[in-house]
Amino acid sequence: MNKEIEFWYEFGSNYSYLSAMRIESLAQGNGLAVRWRPFLLGPIFKSFGWETSPFVLQARKGAYMWEDMVRQCRKYGVPWQRPSEFPRRALLPMRLATLGSNEPWIGAFTRRVMLMNFAEDRNIDSPDTMREVLNELGLDAEQLIGAAQAEVTKARLRSQTEAAEGRGIFGAPTFFVSGQMYWGNDRLEDAIGDALKAREDSTR
Amino acid sequence: MNKEIEFWYEFGSNYSYLSAMRIESLAQGNGLAVRWRPFLLGPIFKSFGWETSPFVLQARKGAYMWEDMVRQCRKYGVPWQRPSEFPRRALLPMRLATLGSNEPWIGAFTRRVMLMNFAEDRNIDSPDTMREVLNELGLDAEQLIGAAQAEVTKARLRSQTEAAEGRGIFGAPTFFVSGQMYWGNDRLEDAIGDALKAREDSTR
Repeated sequence: MNKEIEFWYEFGSNYSYLSAMRIESLAQGNGLAVRWRPFLLGPIFKSFGWETSPFVLQARKGAYMWEDMVRQCRKYGVPWQRPSEFPRRALLPMRLATLGSNEPWIGAFTRRVMLMNFAEDRNIDSPDTMREVLNELGLDAEQLIGAAQAEVTKARLRSQTEAAEGRGIFGAPTFFVSGQMYWGNDRLEDAIGDALKAREDSTR
Repeated sequence: MNKEIEFWYEFGSNYSYLSAMRIESLAQGNGLAVRWRPFLLGPIFKSFGWETSPFVLQARKGAYMWEDMVRQCRKYGVPWQRPSEFPRRALLPMRLATLGSNEPWIGAFTRRVMLMNFAEDRNIDSPDTMREVLNELGLDAEQLIGAAQAEVTKARLRSQTEAAEGRGIFGAPTFFVSGQMYWGNDRLEDAIGDALKAREDSTR
């Protein structure tokens, strides 16, 4: 039985960055498929009455988070530079990820955009940067950027975000394995471990 | 150099429970001293404008937390029963912990009270239950319960809570190692690892 892990993420989310850099290798090494599920955190936060990230709204938690990110990036061996804009607007890359979510390039695309935001402090919500990423990946940048801005893609991202709400998602990253929800980069290993257990049980 | 880890906790906090059950063995096994720092979460939450736990205020996050606790307790091998009152009032045990924070019985006392709350679903804010715990530990229950209710102890717990605010604490459990703050049971291993590294560096 081909077990999978769903990865719900957003480019503006720093803890999603940590998972995005790790999930494909971890899953692949364990024979699991990753289902990439880009969604917008903004509308979820708005539904709680929050106009922005809780890391901005709660100053102390925010101050701690920036310290934590330095240590977590060191722990996982991923590069880090605190973004000068947080949370970073990421509508165009989110729409591109929506378009590519089932394509073989989605992992590499997601990591490249995450690195631009969290290791290079670049504006990712721009056709120029996205063109650069898509070209690097050998993709047809003009066609994809056009399709990303089409009404049908915008609607797909909105409905993916509504689906996130419907699943009880309240933050990112969030993982699902066998119908169970796992919240936060700190639970990635647990989610993968549970997927492996479920697979063992099903082949017993 | 005798390195130490500060453990800031509260009996009403479920993630503090996970750390309370683990920290003494982990620290001892690594030659680290634990500094027990009971403090009240209520006033901290009030300073954010919250009248109760965020797990109550945010329904989805709360629903997830109860699922997460089942899995985390299984992972760490600690017993679990969802408390029928949450967050549980714990003023008397918090004051007893304040009295005992530098005594050799603080670890055993903390774990016993945590188990009553999170594995036995008992009312811990009562002289009867506290008498039971203190007697089990071979301590003078009447004397300690009397001292716990003295104005000087109440004031000590209040000033410990103000100290928590002053240190930038926004939740529990929180650890400090060499002046660095670590939030959440998920960071206990990181905090201990960093304490060991600091000790190695200082003896090099």
